[in-house]
Amino acid sequence: MNSYETRLEKIWDWMDREEISLVMFEDFEPRRDTTIRWLTGQPGDALLFLFTDHSGNRKSVLMPWDSIMAETYAKADIIVPYNNFDRSPLKAIRGVAEIMHVPHGAKIEIPPTTPYPGFLTYVGELSDYDVLCRGNGAAEHALALRAIKDDEEIRSLRKAADITNEIINLLEKKVRSGKIKTEADAALLIEIESRKRGCDGTGFETLAAGPERSFGIHAFPAWTAGPFATRGLSILDFGLRFHGYNTDVTLTFARDPCPKQQKMMALVENAAEIAGNSLKPGNNTSSIACLVDGVFAKSKKSMVHGLGHGVGLDVHERPFLRNRGKEAWDLKPGMVLSVEPGLYDPVYGGCRLENDFLITEDGREILTEARIVRL
Amino acid sequence: MNSYETRLEKIWDWMDREEISLVMFEDFEPRRDTTIRWLTGQPGDALLFLFTDHSGNRKSVLMPWDSIMAETYAKADIIVPYNNFDRSPLKAIRGVAEIMHVPHGAKIEIPPTTPYPGFLTYVGELSDYDVLCRGNGAAEHALALRAIKDDEEIRSLRKAADITNEIINLLEKKVRSGKIKTEADAALLIEIESRKRGCDGTGFETLAAGPERSFGIHAFPAWTAGPFATRGLSILDFGLRFHGYNTDVTLTFARDPCPKQQKMMALVENAAEIAGNSLKPGNNTSSIACLVDGVFAKSKKSMVHGLGHGVGLDVHERPFLRNRGKEAWDLKPGMVLSVEPGLYDPVYGGCRLENDFLITEDGREILTEARIVRL
Repeated sequence: MNSYETRLEKIWDWMDREEISLVMFEDFEPRRDTTIRWLTGQPGDALLFLFTDHSGNRKSVLMPWDSIMAETYAKADIIVPYNNFDRSPLKAIRGVAEIMHVPHGAKIEIPPTTPYPGFLTYVGELSDYDVLCRGNGAAEHALALRAIKDDEEIRSLRKAADITNEIINLLEKKVRSGKIKTEADAALLIEIESRKRGCDGTGFETLAAGPERSFGIHAFPAWTAGPFATRGLSILDFGLRFHGYNTDVTLTFARDPCPKQQKMMALVENAAEIAGNSLKPGNNTSSIACLVDGVFAKSKKSMVHGLGHGVGLDVHERPFLRNRGKEAWDLKPGMVLSVEPGLYDPVYGGCRLENDFLITEDGREILTEARIVRL
Repeated sequence: MNSYETRLEKIWDWMDREEISLVMFEDFEPRRDTTIRWLTGQPGDALLFLFTDHSGNRKSVLMPWDSIMAETYAKADIIVPYNNFDRSPLKAIRGVAEIMHVPHGAKIEIPPTTPYPGFLTYVGELSDYDVLCRGNGAAEHALALRAIKDDEEIRSLRKAADITNEIINLLEKKVRSGKIKTEADAALLIEIESRKRGCDGTGFETLAAGPERSFGIHAFPAWTAGPFATRGLSILDFGLRFHGYNTDVTLTFARDPCPKQQKMMALVENAAEIAGNSLKPGNNTSSIACLVDGVFAKSKKSMVHGLGHGVGLDVHERPFLRNRGKEAWDLKPGMVLSVEPGLYDPVYGGCRLENDFLITEDGREILTEARIVRL
């Protein structure tokens, strides 16, 4: 079995246990779901239906917006243009239920992201079925499976990390030599050099913020023609995508930092080290986030964003490393996640340090080499 | 009144007519809503609550993730950190309802994008209120208002279009002179030159596809280090953002096209002209889309995507120019929309031509100058 088949079988097994006949996944703007890529290779803009009759007859039906693209990239038992169903998800799900002879009264699950008004129309259209729309359904099950990467995924993530590290070194060198003078210089170097090395591109819009703008957690606009790595604190947050898999790192460049800025830098480095050292199987994401909050609180600081997050086909995915919300995860080998402590001040600017880690059998391996660069 | 106040008053007036006391808008990943920017200037990552007691007491409460950013960019009666409510939308909406003394039993409207499982938790948390979650509620009302741009918005769109046109000319010149040889050359020129001219950046990831990849409606990956504008059809789809407002244009570069490619080009140009000429107040979006479908059908071709869409703070917004779905819009002065006919073939590649138009009192004005460039 190839990776797609292995993954599909896990979802079908789960469907049999849950006695669900048909599951729909949706990956269209504005509701994106990279699980379709994870299960079929289809890069986006499609519906995916998984059917099982609970006695071994299992089928995947991919309904792409761009059929030529799907024939090029995707694997599924049936590929049928979304246009054949007038690009209507209601017509599509009803059509698949009929083609697959889903028995009346059977359970059909729709995406948990379905807005409430849309949910009502599904229930109306599928009145002869038992329509499920749950937070803990098939989509969440797939996301939980995706939290633990298989060997093929780890290879892609390692490759993405290796290229990220090459570019981190290049960035430091060119900032030190004065070749990078503006936010644009830094952002464009990343765009060019990542693609030269075979990346799909950047996984999100690079955030390059010179000292005047580094107070923002996510700089707005993302980058400008303005100065970078001049006196004070500059933040550079970027990620590269290789075969669909993402890194997410943040460097801080400090030039002639004042004592308050130096203290911020030391606190962030300390938090990053404590968090990194606590990453090992069995440790809990919420406890780690609390530990770091405690570190900051001792210095009367607090962090206004989460401590980190899984990375994979999505830049932000499970497990989330934070102490808010109900979710908490026990770390397991194969998880890959970022740790990104940061502090922000309207006058002194911001400082963030973010690296990506692979949880191993007995600890963790650091994949990326972002740092606070003292100029 | 400034623009924000004028816009807010329209929403509050609507709330009074609908007897709604509190409306919540949400702009967080993955559910983005630029209406918060339209109403307050806040660039993103926030909740916005609008309250009215129906007798003239009206308040806007902005709850940003990044308070420093909000204090820099946004205007609202009250700005309170989302962190004060543990970054929980449920705690936030309950908190605002209490602070504003929303009477029990009053109508509170939550975003229509709220997933069904989340809707259930809102209803549980707000059991002493009448919770509304509707497709045709406040969010949709705001989007419909936004379809008609005010003078300030048209100024930003014109500026974005002027810069887009400068860059279109530069692209053609550099392709002709051989300076642009790869997809990356084209994409990076757009990144650099747009920011030099004061743009926030590109509004979406530039799609640059040489002849080998132009069969895709949306090339995947978006752009590579591979050849561009070599023999055959190359597509370049990009948009620039100025003060938040977007253009969206597509050029096709044709080098030594074969007769089949020439026919595609002529059909697309003809469709673009027919669609453009039919843009005037009173004409209906669905009828225009049908007209163009008819043009393609006569040549036994069909278009697998919509004909166009509004542009503004979002790259895709109301009115949508398509004949699928229930929505149809009568064009009105002040609407700004793109028209983008295209044809795609797995062997011969793709051809698309997209320009942006402003609907005027008696017709339309073409804002952008994208074209099919014959090399």
